[in-house]
Amino acid sequence: MEQRYRANLVNSLSGFKSANLIGTMDSNGKTNLAIFSSVVHLGASPALIGFVMRPDNVPRDTLKNIKDSGAYTINQVNRSIWQKAHQTSARYDENVSEFDAVSLTPLLRSGFVPPFVKESNLQLAVELVEIMPITANNTLFIIGKITDLFLPENAISVDGYLDIEACQSVAISGLDSYHSTKRLARLSYAKPFKEVEQLNVDNSVICSNGEEDLCTYGKC
Amino acid sequence: MEQRYRANLVNSLSGFKSANLIGTMDSNGKTNLAIFSSVVHLGASPALIGFVMRPDNVPRDTLKNIKDSGAYTINQVNRSIWQKAHQTSARYDENVSEFDAVSLTPLLRSGFVPPFVKESNLQLAVELVEIMPITANNTLFIIGKITDLFLPENAISVDGYLDIEACQSVAISGLDSYHSTKRLARLSYAKPFKEVEQLNVDNSVICSNGEEDLCTYGKC
Repeated sequence: MEQRYRANLVNSLSGFKSANLIGTMDSNGKTNLAIFSSVVHLGASPALIGFVMRPDNVPRDTLKNIKDSGAYTINQVNRSIWQKAHQTSARYDENVSEFDAVSLTPLLRSGFVPPFVKESNLQLAVELVEIMPITANNTLFIIGKITDLFLPENAISVDGYLDIEACQSVAISGLDSYHSTKRLARLSYAKPFKEVEQLNVDNSVICSNGEEDLCTYGKC
Repeated sequence: MEQRYRANLVNSLSGFKSANLIGTMDSNGKTNLAIFSSVVHLGASPALIGFVMRPDNVPRDTLKNIKDSGAYTINQVNRSIWQKAHQTSARYDENVSEFDAVSLTPLLRSGFVPPFVKESNLQLAVELVEIMPITANNTLFIIGKITDLFLPENAISVDGYLDIEACQSVAISGLDSYHSTKRLARLSYAKPFKEVEQLNVDNSVICSNGEEDLCTYGKC
């Protein structure tokens, strides 16, 4: 297979992916921003999150800054910024901040070194835990601990579920395809030989007469 | 935070997730099936794919079978089977096959030990490469190599992009929320100081007059 064809195809095989902007700062105070589709949940307690990086990949600055500062931000991409977010994958010179280049706003918060993305509805502060080399293909798995959340509290349901669809978060497929979503339903905790129930965002059971999802959209 | 509340919240923070059923077989020929939302693309050449597993997690059989046989299948969940897929997360006894319990069809193929899910449009045969312990939270990162694909060839675009939306693949958010998707657009390869273009599924540029995505749906 031709290299680009293969990259497009294999990148589609895992299914839908998360869309996140990772923000970092170097020791001179220069900000850096790069989109990643490989951010993955690792565990709730402690709150660990991982993502995959090629050492020889476009956002070399991201890796260097994470190593140097031990900190980064993860900012979920939404429908207002998906095109700007994609543009951060261009190979800008080291002296250019992607924030400036794509017109996103770096948000500096007291007590945090790396910049958040002001236009993102869901912003995480993350401390580096470990960089695990994946020897099979010379990539790196970057593991971090979520220390702080910045998000609209009313998007959190009574049982802790966060309505990222109401926050207009987008999904990615392949290398370059962006998708909005429509909830089919939440499903009840599965037990053997008991049919699962369809739930609303607030964990209440959806009426079996086919009534529509009663959740409130537009919370973010 | 209460444990379940925390699990719901933290599981939402990474963004949208893939929905896949992992099929395995034990040494006695008993099949096993479990849903995972942590399957992630690791690299195109070689075609590597990873997922996260807790050693003390529900689908213990999956881990044992992967260790014993060195092989598994990854089957993308679609709109026809998402509820059955969710039901595989129930704690069935070891002697129960989830295929039977949730009424999905094990598809055995010559030359492959583990069963595929017949009802899935995108089925991958995977060979185990490495089980990496994540010491920070006692989970495992299972890395495999995709050896064979079973999918509708006409869902592959001219440039290798696979239209998983046309295959009705679903996305997951949090622990239990399932979503269908609507493509915003593909975007052109990003270059510094050049505006990205919106592309159709076949990599052609979408007319700037706002014409709708011209892709053909319903290929799967």
